[in-house]
Amino acid sequence: MSNGLKLYHSAASPNSRRVRIFLAEKGIAIPLVPVDLAKGEQRSDAYVAINPRRVVPTLVLEDGTAIGEVLAIWRYLEEVYPTPPLLGSTPKDKALITMWERRTELEGFAAVMDAVRNAAERLKGRAIAGPHDYDQIPALAERSKLRVKNFYADLDARLTEVPFVAGNTFSAADITGLVTADFATKAMSFLAPGQHPALERWYKNVSSRPSGASSPRSGDQSFAHRRRATRRPRYARRSTA
Amino acid sequence: MSNGLKLYHSAASPNSRRVRIFLAEKGIAIPLVPVDLAKGEQRSDAYVAINPRRVVPTLVLEDGTAIGEVLAIWRYLEEVYPTPPLLGSTPKDKALITMWERRTELEGFAAVMDAVRNAAERLKGRAIAGPHDYDQIPALAERSKLRVKNFYADLDARLTEVPFVAGNTFSAADITGLVTADFATKAMSFLAPGQHPALERWYKNVSSRPSGASSPRSGDQSFAHRRRATRRPRYARRSTA
Repeated sequence: MSNGLKLYHSAASPNSRRVRIFLAEKGIAIPLVPVDLAKGEQRSDAYVAINPRRVVPTLVLEDGTAIGEVLAIWRYLEEVYPTPPLLGSTPKDKALITMWERRTELEGFAAVMDAVRNAAERLKGRAIAGPHDYDQIPALAERSKLRVKNFYADLDARLTEVPFVAGNTFSAADITGLVTADFATKAMSFLAPGQHPALERWYKNVSSRPSGASSPRSGDQSFAHRRRATRRPRYARRSTA
Repeated sequence: MSNGLKLYHSAASPNSRRVRIFLAEKGIAIPLVPVDLAKGEQRSDAYVAINPRRVVPTLVLEDGTAIGEVLAIWRYLEEVYPTPPLLGSTPKDKALITMWERRTELEGFAAVMDAVRNAAERLKGRAIAGPHDYDQIPALAERSKLRVKNFYADLDARLTEVPFVAGNTFSAADITGLVTADFATKAMSFLAPGQHPALERWYKNVSSRPSGASSPRSGDQSFAHRRRATRRPRYARRSTA
């Protein structure tokens, strides 16, 4: 597949994983360009030129247009590769998937992010990703943990009614849910399924899809290992330098 | 126009205003059902049945499907009423508008919301909208003010390069920007344009569009007054009770 696209990402970045899973579900293989967050490559002139917020991931199109933000990258990919649909087929489905994905991100993913960024020693003074420095707020980390707990209870209740987050079919809302659960398990030692049977059933289902295996949770294995493990020979690695 | 749609909203809610402006830009007239937040109508059984997050706005379709979250409501309306496009026409435009709208919401709108909800006396114990109670965090209100300041500086820099937030045409990103600026002015006494010339030029431009006038900023005038002022006779008011 020669579509001229490339994705700047980080193996350890949960937002990057949201895009990698989306690509895998679509069966799209594009070059992945690693950005080494530990070395601060996201703050390099080369990267800031394509993403002024200095965050991963960024999708770069053949004409050089740089698209940041997971929702925006997803939207582009869905428009160009509509099958299988992950953002919905009818106007109603598109709206409902947008709604459930957003609730999952707002109440789950963002809460885990706040809990982590406001507590991690290595992120002192960097409590919010982006070009500006902000102090951590320990009380916010604590409040966010409570939010994650409530999120799991609410999602469990939802999943007693429907098999997937947005209803009867797998969608982008499940991708955000899965990445949130693995992120919470890894970064907060929150056991995702835990005492929630419906959540556990859903988690086992969505995490066993091939897209989950080809886009491992943060830190599970090295990117190099993942690359060897994939059967997509066209993945390429390049330096951002 | 008989499309079977109705919008549950609050005149004072900035998120409701994002949808009202979108409707006005599209020239769509639908019944508006006011939800009295001061009286706690958003927590009534009737409203929770259509919006479990207990927030406004919610769009209800003819078949009874309830769509919450501004982005989801916008997506539905754009699909059904594509002209004029406010979320983009080409895949690239759709992605770039999604990106700029999101940055505006994340760095601007959400920061103003955090500053307000973590400081207002009447929101003690209700720092986050939704079904769960969370304590306010004064340090978060302060950090959020700094974020709003940085947001204005960044947006001003952006608007020295392009006439509208997402580029050369008016889009949903401008709607979120306009509502953010008015929300900050009203709720935080932040003077929106202030010392930023490009931001001031943009603000004068977008706030003078008819859609801004027909969907006033929170608290500018009563909903009843607004309704009399509009030339859309099919707007109706109903009780949620």
